[in-house]
Amino acid sequence: MSASRHNGLAARMEDIQSFHVMGILSRARTLESQGRSIIHMEIGEPEFPTPEPVVTAAIEALRAGETHYTPALGLPDLREAIAAYYRQRDGIEVDPQRIIITPGSSGALLLALGVLIDPGDRVLMSDPGYPCNRHFVRFLEGVADGIAVDEETDYQLSAELIERHWQARTRAVMLASPANPTGAVIPEHKLREIVNTVERLGGALIMDEIYHDLVYGQRPRSVLALSDAVFVVNSFSKFFNMTGWRIGWLVAPEDFVSPVDRLAQNIFLAASTPAQHAALKAFGKGTLDILEQHRQALQQRRDYLLPALRDIGFTVGAHPAGAFYIYAGCHRFTQDSQAFCRDLLEQAGVAITPGCDFGQYRAAGHVRFSYTTSMENLEEGVRRLREYLA
Amino acid sequence: MSASRHNGLAARMEDIQSFHVMGILSRARTLESQGRSIIHMEIGEPEFPTPEPVVTAAIEALRAGETHYTPALGLPDLREAIAAYYRQRDGIEVDPQRIIITPGSSGALLLALGVLIDPGDRVLMSDPGYPCNRHFVRFLEGVADGIAVDEETDYQLSAELIERHWQARTRAVMLASPANPTGAVIPEHKLREIVNTVERLGGALIMDEIYHDLVYGQRPRSVLALSDAVFVVNSFSKFFNMTGWRIGWLVAPEDFVSPVDRLAQNIFLAASTPAQHAALKAFGKGTLDILEQHRQALQQRRDYLLPALRDIGFTVGAHPAGAFYIYAGCHRFTQDSQAFCRDLLEQAGVAITPGCDFGQYRAAGHVRFSYTTSMENLEEGVRRLREYLA
Repeated sequence: MSASRHNGLAARMEDIQSFHVMGILSRARTLESQGRSIIHMEIGEPEFPTPEPVVTAAIEALRAGETHYTPALGLPDLREAIAAYYRQRDGIEVDPQRIIITPGSSGALLLALGVLIDPGDRVLMSDPGYPCNRHFVRFLEGVADGIAVDEETDYQLSAELIERHWQARTRAVMLASPANPTGAVIPEHKLREIVNTVERLGGALIMDEIYHDLVYGQRPRSVLALSDAVFVVNSFSKFFNMTGWRIGWLVAPEDFVSPVDRLAQNIFLAASTPAQHAALKAFGKGTLDILEQHRQALQQRRDYLLPALRDIGFTVGAHPAGAFYIYAGCHRFTQDSQAFCRDLLEQAGVAITPGCDFGQYRAAGHVRFSYTTSMENLEEGVRRLREYLA
Repeated sequence: MSASRHNGLAARMEDIQSFHVMGILSRARTLESQGRSIIHMEIGEPEFPTPEPVVTAAIEALRAGETHYTPALGLPDLREAIAAYYRQRDGIEVDPQRIIITPGSSGALLLALGVLIDPGDRVLMSDPGYPCNRHFVRFLEGVADGIAVDEETDYQLSAELIERHWQARTRAVMLASPANPTGAVIPEHKLREIVNTVERLGGALIMDEIYHDLVYGQRPRSVLALSDAVFVVNSFSKFFNMTGWRIGWLVAPEDFVSPVDRLAQNIFLAASTPAQHAALKAFGKGTLDILEQHRQALQQRRDYLLPALRDIGFTVGAHPAGAFYIYAGCHRFTQDSQAFCRDLLEQAGVAITPGCDFGQYRAAGHVRFSYTTSMENLEEGVRRLREYLA
C-alpha cells in the first residue's frame, strides 16, 4: 500500500489537498488589508451570528462550571433534544441512543467512515461534491470513486448511477441533500430508490444532512424516515449558525453505536462541553424563530442571485433548492475557472470558488457562488461582475 | 490488508477497544444514583474548575460574536501566546508558525500520526502507556509496538530500548513526560540520548507534554529545547483545567506545517473558536497564579497518597514525579487487577483503574490511582482501602 515517501511524509498526504478557496480567501484578506473592497461569495459560512438564546445558554453553562468532559457519545439531554427535533420536524422516531454528539460534522464523517472502511474499500460519491469527503476516505486508506453527475440527475447520484458504478470492493455511498456545491435536493421518491439499491447491494449509505433545514420550497423528510440502517451526518454549523463551536451529530444504525462509542472515546474523548450546553437551546422556539428569519433571508438572496447570474451569462444546471450555493457554468467567459476566479478577485474584487475544489468533472468550466453575504453585498457583487464581464 | 468483517465493521474496530475505566466510571455512577458513596480515583481529570479569567474571556468573546471559523491552524494571537509561553517558561524560541491549535491533544496526535504513518509502519511506545496511542496508530493502519518498561528505566523508553526494538518499518517513537499512568518524568540527559538516537535511526519523535507543567520538583525543559525536528503534543486540558473545552496544540517541524494545515483543513476545519479565545487568557498572571495553587494542591495530595499506598501494601516502582497518577503493583492482594478493581468498587466504594487499560505487560498486577479528587476524599479512600484490604 505504501508509496514512496517525499520528505518523510505519509503517502496519503500526496492526495490530501488544500482547498483552493483557502488561497482565494487568504488573497482576498491581503487585498482588504491593502484597502481594497472585496465582495465575499467564496465562503461556505453564513454571516449570521449565533442566535442569542444559544449564546446565553453557553454563558450560563460556563458560569455554572460546565467545563469538564461529557460522555463520549454526548450529553444525554442533547441526544434527547435532537430526537425530539426529528419527531417534531419530520414526524419520525429516532432512538436517542443512536444519536452521537460529535466535534462538527467533520467528526461525524470520521467516525462513520472509521467504523466502515477497510484499506482498499471503495466509496461512491458525486463529482462535483463536498471536497473533504474524498480526503476523509483517503485518510482511512479507502478509495474514493467520484462519479460524474450533471443536469440529467440534478447533479446528484441516482440509484441507477450507483448500481452502474458498484464494484466488488464498494463499501459505501456518500450523499448530501441539499448538496455542496450545487444546493440540489434529492426528492423523497429518488432517495427511496437509492436507499433500497444500496441496501440490496449490501453497502452502507452515509447521508449528509447538514443543510437539511435550509431548503427553499417543499422540504423532504430526513432519510431516517426511510431507513434505520443509514448513517446520517448533521451539524449545528450551517442552519443553526454555530460554525465556530464545532458541534454536530451522527445518527448510526443500532449495531454501530457501540463501535462508534469506542472510536469516539479514543480519537476525540468527547465534543466540546460548552458547545453542547449551548446546543441544548438550539431547538427552542426563540431560536427557531430567528433561524426561520435567516432561512427566509437566504431564500430572498437566492431568488435574487440566480436570475442575475443567468442574465450575466452564467449557466446554472443544478437546481439550487437549498443550502446557500449556486454552482454555475462559466463557459462563456473562460476555459479555466481557476484563472477566472483569480482574475475576478484581482480585477473586480469579487471572491468566488473555482470548480476544482469540488472534483474533476467539468471543473474548469464551473465556479461556486455562496450567497452567505448580505443582499447589499450581493447586489454590489453582481454589479461588479456585470461590469467586469461586459 | 483487510481482515474478515464482523457485521460489516471495519477490521480496525476489532482492535480499538473501550477503556475499562469507562466501565468502572459508569458502574460508579450507577452505585451513586442508588445512594452509595464512591471515592473517585479512576478519572484522569482534575476536579478544579477552569480558572475564572479564562471563563470570563470566553464569555466576552461570545458576547462579541466570536463564533465563526478561525483559520485551520488557529488564531494567530494564540499561536503567538504559546510561543511567548515557551520563551518565558523554558527560555526557548519556537516559531509561532510551527504551533498549530488543535481540538485537544487528541487532535494533535491524529494530525501528527496522519502526516507520518503509512499502513504497516511501526510506532514504538511504552507498555504501560497512554492507551489511545496504540489505537490512533491502529486507526491509521499502522502497527503499535508496545515495549515493556519497568523500574530499570523508571517505566519510560530509553535510547537503548528504542535502538534494540527498532525495525525496518519503524517510523516513529511516542513518549510522554510526565507519563500516564506512572507520572514518571524523563530527565533531560536521557531525553537528549533519545532524541539523538531517534534522529540517527531516521525516525520521528512524538512527545506528549500535556502534563509538562505538572511536575513536583525540578521541571525539565520542553523537548523543544533539544530539537526542532520533534513533534510536541500539548493541551489546555490538564494543567490549564480546560478538559471539556477540547483545545490543545501541536508543534511540528517546519517542513510538516503545510501538510498538517492541509490535513487539519480537511478533517477538523478548525478548533473551537470560543475555546481559542478563552485560551488566550490561559497565560496571564492571574490564571498562572491560580494554576500554581492547583499544582501545589496536587503535590500535597501525591505526597500524602504515595506513602499511604505503600503502607497499605501496594508497591510503586515508577517515581510519580508529575501528572496526577500513581501506578501501583497490587501483587500482594490479587493476581487479577481487573477483578480487584471491580470488587474494590462494589465492596469498598473506591473507584480505580486496572492496569489492562494501559497495555499488557504485568497489567494484571497493577492498578492506577488518580489523585484528582480532594485531600478529604483521598483520606477517606485510603481509610476504605485500609479497612477492605486489612
